[in-house]
Amino acid sequence: MISRVLAADLPAQVGEHVMISGWLHRRRELKSVTFLVIRDRSGLAQVVQPGGGPPIPEETVLQVEGTVTASPQAPGGAEITGPVITPLSAPAAPPPFDLYRPAVTAGLPAILDSAPTSLRHPVLRAGFEIAAASVAGFRAALDARGFTEIFTPKIVPSATESGASVFGLDYFGRPAYLAQSPQFYKQAMVGVFERVYEVGPVFRAEPHDTARHLAQYTSLDAELGFIRDHRDVMAVLRDVISGMAAAVRGQPRFAREVPGLVLPDVPAGIPDIHFTAAQELIAGEAGWDPRGEPDLAPADERWLGAWARREFGSDFLFVTGYPMSKRPFYTHPDPRRPGYSNGFDLLFRGQELVTGGQRLHEHGDYVAALASRGEDPAPYASYLQVFEHGMPPHGGFAIGLERWTARLTGAANIREVTLFPRDRHRLSP
Amino acid sequence: MISRVLAADLPAQVGEHVMISGWLHRRRELKSVTFLVIRDRSGLAQVVQPGGGPPIPEETVLQVEGTVTASPQAPGGAEITGPVITPLSAPAAPPPFDLYRPAVTAGLPAILDSAPTSLRHPVLRAGFEIAAASVAGFRAALDARGFTEIFTPKIVPSATESGASVFGLDYFGRPAYLAQSPQFYKQAMVGVFERVYEVGPVFRAEPHDTARHLAQYTSLDAELGFIRDHRDVMAVLRDVISGMAAAVRGQPRFAREVPGLVLPDVPAGIPDIHFTAAQELIAGEAGWDPRGEPDLAPADERWLGAWARREFGSDFLFVTGYPMSKRPFYTHPDPRRPGYSNGFDLLFRGQELVTGGQRLHEHGDYVAALASRGEDPAPYASYLQVFEHGMPPHGGFAIGLERWTARLTGAANIREVTLFPRDRHRLSP
Repeated sequence: MISRVLAADLPAQVGEHVMISGWLHRRRELKSVTFLVIRDRSGLAQVVQPGGGPPIPEETVLQVEGTVTASPQAPGGAEITGPVITPLSAPAAPPPFDLYRPAVTAGLPAILDSAPTSLRHPVLRAGFEIAAASVAGFRAALDARGFTEIFTPKIVPSATESGASVFGLDYFGRPAYLAQSPQFYKQAMVGVFERVYEVGPVFRAEPHDTARHLAQYTSLDAELGFIRDHRDVMAVLRDVISGMAAAVRGQPRFAREVPGLVLPDVPAGIPDIHFTAAQELIAGEAGWDPRGEPDLAPADERWLGAWARREFGSDFLFVTGYPMSKRPFYTHPDPRRPGYSNGFDLLFRGQELVTGGQRLHEHGDYVAALASRGEDPAPYASYLQVFEHGMPPHGGFAIGLERWTARLTGAANIREVTLFPRDRHRLSP
Repeated sequence: MISRVLAADLPAQVGEHVMISGWLHRRRELKSVTFLVIRDRSGLAQVVQPGGGPPIPEETVLQVEGTVTASPQAPGGAEITGPVITPLSAPAAPPPFDLYRPAVTAGLPAILDSAPTSLRHPVLRAGFEIAAASVAGFRAALDARGFTEIFTPKIVPSATESGASVFGLDYFGRPAYLAQSPQFYKQAMVGVFERVYEVGPVFRAEPHDTARHLAQYTSLDAELGFIRDHRDVMAVLRDVISGMAAAVRGQPRFAREVPGLVLPDVPAGIPDIHFTAAQELIAGEAGWDPRGEPDLAPADERWLGAWARREFGSDFLFVTGYPMSKRPFYTHPDPRRPGYSNGFDLLFRGQELVTGGQRLHEHGDYVAALASRGEDPAPYASYLQVFEHGMPPHGGFAIGLERWTARLTGAANIREVTLFPRDRHRLSP
């Protein structure tokens, strides 16, 4: 039996008799000839059928045998002539919108309602391939730096990390919660492997219905021990982001397929600015005065993003030293300015992409931090125990995969680059 | 500032002044000298301290500067002399059991209750490194074969795959469930990417408390389109298993660290036997008669595992053609024997490791399959929709990571190789 050739490999097989398989992407009937465009995972192939051709609806799965013939007008410069066409499944129902048009012509709700079919559109599909390539780049960068991959529980005994909303569930008759982050587990595993990462789902019962928030997203988490302070974490993060961008850049077809794709250059040293200096700068130059606020507003971040591009030609900017009052209790304070933290955000094109920092590592510091916030230490018992058995100075970060992909591809809504998004209104497909 | 050297790199640095960091693994005080063994992510390093040395408890995190000196008795043939020792955190509380003894001396409940500390034991730690290496091997094998990595929802609208128990949760006031597998999503994505895989958590509200079942485990899922039948899936699975074993074999220290590790040779062609032939064979040779049973019992699987080893020298055996009545409704029947399926199990050392098969791909076949089982098609609406838009013949498989790792390392209980296991009695740490 003749074995299958991919569409992208046809130009190298001119003159050969081959078999391709895929979906009928487009059928164009002219007076004396019918063009069938077949889509497979590698791209598109054109098949030329003399006469009317079979009345097959688009999206039917076909197998086509024929001869590869040079043709300057065909994709890649080759097409299949003299075809024998065999359907591999029953004729398909029409897709919810025309998948063959270069631009996506449906609105977001329609795209999401019929995601399994919509995502066959090459532009939408490529967004997910960019996400996959980014994750591969994340892992490769950390594998090369001695990190170990971990897989941690997503069902947890208590709703920690107060502030964010959690999903509760019935766990064999007891209350339990879906993990909002692998924070505690990745810290504990620094005590075992020193350097760990996890790529996995995290869950937030987000009451907000915005273009940036989801009830489930993919978190790229890393944590490392034996650091001097948060700057060692920032250096690893810089390398990771660079590896992610390089993995996407390594597949030139992404740029062809996704018109909005703009890949960043990641500077060898990403510029950084202290939180208080950032507020001073904005107060002096932006026309408003954020000083005294304990956090940056989206407008502040946008202004700083533009400033970093203007000043340093950088899409990225580290903001360090956020006030302790706005960071989680496990955040390590700046030893020289205890009201400020060794925590940072990485802004990408004027929007927060990554949060990270140095964590506390002394048991006594945890007890004191919880007490000063008036929190009951009981739910944290098994977490606190970790720090009684010797933990090195450590820190880490978490990157939201969908946010990263949306920023890269120019997607206005994070749902465009999320496989089957979940939010307060959407639970299917 | 002097930068850190890992323990494993000391032998290459004899004569140099270096700094190492890690945990005090063991402290042995002799008459005129104290030996400190430091553990880091790479292994162990010996530090020789004249006199009594500091009374530091084991598991304290230390930084040691000193001179690397050749010493045949030391691990790797080198040790650190003339040390200057700096604690990096407060003295540690004693671990729950002696981490420095070659064998793990605690029982499973004690290990699990204090997992963050217990897992520092080199034997237990290596089990998780073997799991991580296996996952890397899984991904590499599929990346090389044109697969795309996906990340699917873990909160789903209906409890499908009847039979297994599901966790329910309150989803913004509506009922929802934790995904028992990415089955429907990975099939849908065959329509987009042709070949997909996912490494992620799956959830089962297992009422059984056995050595093999967990409420959450890591599922290595793959699905591929444009197959002839299940044999194409089995061929990919064979290559994947071979890649996983090779990835573990590639790190020789695993064999040194885990005494129970026995790596399999994966034959170029894994032997296979049809379900009915397997039952005939057992009836004729094993001393009991399983014919007429719709599934294999554990004793049948053990017997077949021993037979495959005896007959073919193989740790692996495919059993194909399980009766349709015991397989999920989406299973493709054997066109020549419709009561039997194009589904298979892969037995590894006489125990089921992987389940897989060809799936239905025609919309009408799904509707008929649900009807013949008396199932309401309504909860499957968005799943069934996929098959109206053109789906190729496809199939796939799922490997339980923890089962694989337990079989490789000889762990008697899957919990030994699960990071923070979850079962009906255990929800923490």
